[in-house]
Amino acid sequence: MKRINALKQIAFEKKGFDGFLVTNETNLIYLTGFPGAACLLIPKKGENTIYVYGVNYEQAKAEGKDFKVELVKRGEKLPEKLSAQMKECKIKKLAVDTLSYDGYRLFAKAMRGKAKLKIQGKLVWELRKVKDEKELELMRKAGELTTQGMKVAHETIRAGVKEYEVAAEIEYAMRKCGCWGTAFDTIVASGVRSAFPHGGCTDREIRKGDLVVVDIGATYHFYRSDMTRTFVAGAPSEKQKKIYEIVRLAQEKAYQTIKPKAKAKEVDAAARKVITDAGYGEYFVHGLGHGVGLEVHEPPGLSPESKDKLVVGNVVTNEPGIYIAGFGGFRIEDTVLVQKRKGEKFTDGLYILEVAR
Amino acid sequence: MKRINALKQIAFEKKGFDGFLVTNETNLIYLTGFPGAACLLIPKKGENTIYVYGVNYEQAKAEGKDFKVELVKRGEKLPEKLSAQMKECKIKKLAVDTLSYDGYRLFAKAMRGKAKLKIQGKLVWELRKVKDEKELELMRKAGELTTQGMKVAHETIRAGVKEYEVAAEIEYAMRKCGCWGTAFDTIVASGVRSAFPHGGCTDREIRKGDLVVVDIGATYHFYRSDMTRTFVAGAPSEKQKKIYEIVRLAQEKAYQTIKPKAKAKEVDAAARKVITDAGYGEYFVHGLGHGVGLEVHEPPGLSPESKDKLVVGNVVTNEPGIYIAGFGGFRIEDTVLVQKRKGEKFTDGLYILEVAR
Repeated sequence: MKRINALKQIAFEKKGFDGFLVTNETNLIYLTGFPGAACLLIPKKGENTIYVYGVNYEQAKAEGKDFKVELVKRGEKLPEKLSAQMKECKIKKLAVDTLSYDGYRLFAKAMRGKAKLKIQGKLVWELRKVKDEKELELMRKAGELTTQGMKVAHETIRAGVKEYEVAAEIEYAMRKCGCWGTAFDTIVASGVRSAFPHGGCTDREIRKGDLVVVDIGATYHFYRSDMTRTFVAGAPSEKQKKIYEIVRLAQEKAYQTIKPKAKAKEVDAAARKVITDAGYGEYFVHGLGHGVGLEVHEPPGLSPESKDKLVVGNVVTNEPGIYIAGFGGFRIEDTVLVQKRKGEKFTDGLYILEVAR
Repeated sequence: MKRINALKQIAFEKKGFDGFLVTNETNLIYLTGFPGAACLLIPKKGENTIYVYGVNYEQAKAEGKDFKVELVKRGEKLPEKLSAQMKECKIKKLAVDTLSYDGYRLFAKAMRGKAKLKIQGKLVWELRKVKDEKELELMRKAGELTTQGMKVAHETIRAGVKEYEVAAEIEYAMRKCGCWGTAFDTIVASGVRSAFPHGGCTDREIRKGDLVVVDIGATYHFYRSDMTRTFVAGAPSEKQKKIYEIVRLAQEKAYQTIKPKAKAKEVDAAARKVITDAGYGEYFVHGLGHGVGLEVHEPPGLSPESKDKLVVGNVVTNEPGIYIAGFGGFRIEDTVLVQKRKGEKFTDGLYILEVAR
């Protein structure tokens, strides 16, 4: 209810709306704690109501205790139902978090001009960007599970093993420790494919001397984590060692700038400077990081174009990389909580290039 | 290219558009085979072009061989870039698969009224609904992997094991056999939670006599599968056996109707009749099934409201269920290919209520 009250504060008191409709699945989980609602209507005056289809009705009644639960029956049209409820709550100026173009038109039609409709997704992001204690507890656990998975990656990678076999061991270990699933498709990209930041995970057999980029995340109670390490199967070459150290230093320099009031683009710049000064600027082909939470990619973004400023409670990734087509790629990534003094790493350790097999 | 040509045929020859913009991630995979494009512009006259950000540029060049690959540089605006290319290709009437309301407005602004813009997502669905041989091969494999996972569920479930431990074993087995990941969050819902069709997977310990609904899917080369079985940990009660048999019969009756030209709502009705005649109609709280492919929920829908007719090449789930709040739930589901004669089950076997432990 605290989160809903905070949203009401921004949307109603500050922005002058008298109703908020939430349709995005993740926003619904954030505000209701329940994953099966079709939407949530928050009126300025009246009961907060979640709308559910029959398939989730019993679960909503059991788990959505702070809300009025409205069943959308077979054949009933949700926009019409919402429109009727808005009339009852005397909503004249409705904010919606997100709608497709077709959805907007359908809904506007159902309202027959009786209320104004405005997309205001940013208002929910303002809240979601700053994690509360309950969220941080879950994200800390997600980070621990992810670090656990990375240890298994380090133990499993060797010449002769296939990429997906490494993924199997990582995911199994995270699951056995209680994670809810993977935060995104596990990346185990070896050899020349390691130079593709989104290189996926194939049935390629890892060879001696290969770079292997492992990018993984555990989900815990809907919250995600994100961590990357780069390993070499066997003894690394001098060139591999040299580039790895540049990326490692870039990550460390950026980490030192992760503080409240820091400009996101300056955190990016701290890492980018190290890489550029070493002559690899053109090979750092993405922003330094992104917010993490219920989704794996959230605001604030850490990139040269970002207009964000960090505040306490932001959780962001710090993931510089160097990718050389035909040679291979390097990325080191942690999920970091912005705190008053230094950032808290939710994923940590294993800054090791070599797997000694 | 066959798929793009088919889309051109519908959109340009039949519908009179002279350009198609694809923005949906799954549609992009379907049409390009490559997962990292921001969008794809198909002009009636001119080169098919995929637009990618720097992070995926090298991979796009390596994997998107049939396309012109256009890099969206830092600071460049995609709508402006697209608009310029549309001008070059003399596109006057553009179809787009999907846009958010805000995205639509942004894009329309960039075009400055120089071309008409219309959302035409259904045209891509017309193609995606009917799987080609290459797709069926991958879906067959995804189905095999899923059935493999279900065998492990059957071997693992017993009193004293936690739901997530069962999920760990299932997912590990599927991964070791080469699957790419899970098609959706694995459901292992036991006890009273089995009555929630989307009951998830918790750290609840399974008890003797519990119903356990296991709903799983493997992904293989982007293609998904979907399968549910219901087990009892230990000896089932007479009531459990009785209801299971009703669901089993409902599934069998529906399966017999899965044929080309069958109305989707009549396939649903075949299962619903069995359940209703047995007195459990109100407990079958969802439609009978849905299409499966690159996504786990696709058209055609099998429900009382569906207006679809089945054709050869549709792949649908057949998943009747009975859910009794406070008692437990039953669902049996297979992924089935519509063929000339009888449907081919991509998932099969294990119609067993009891796990003898």
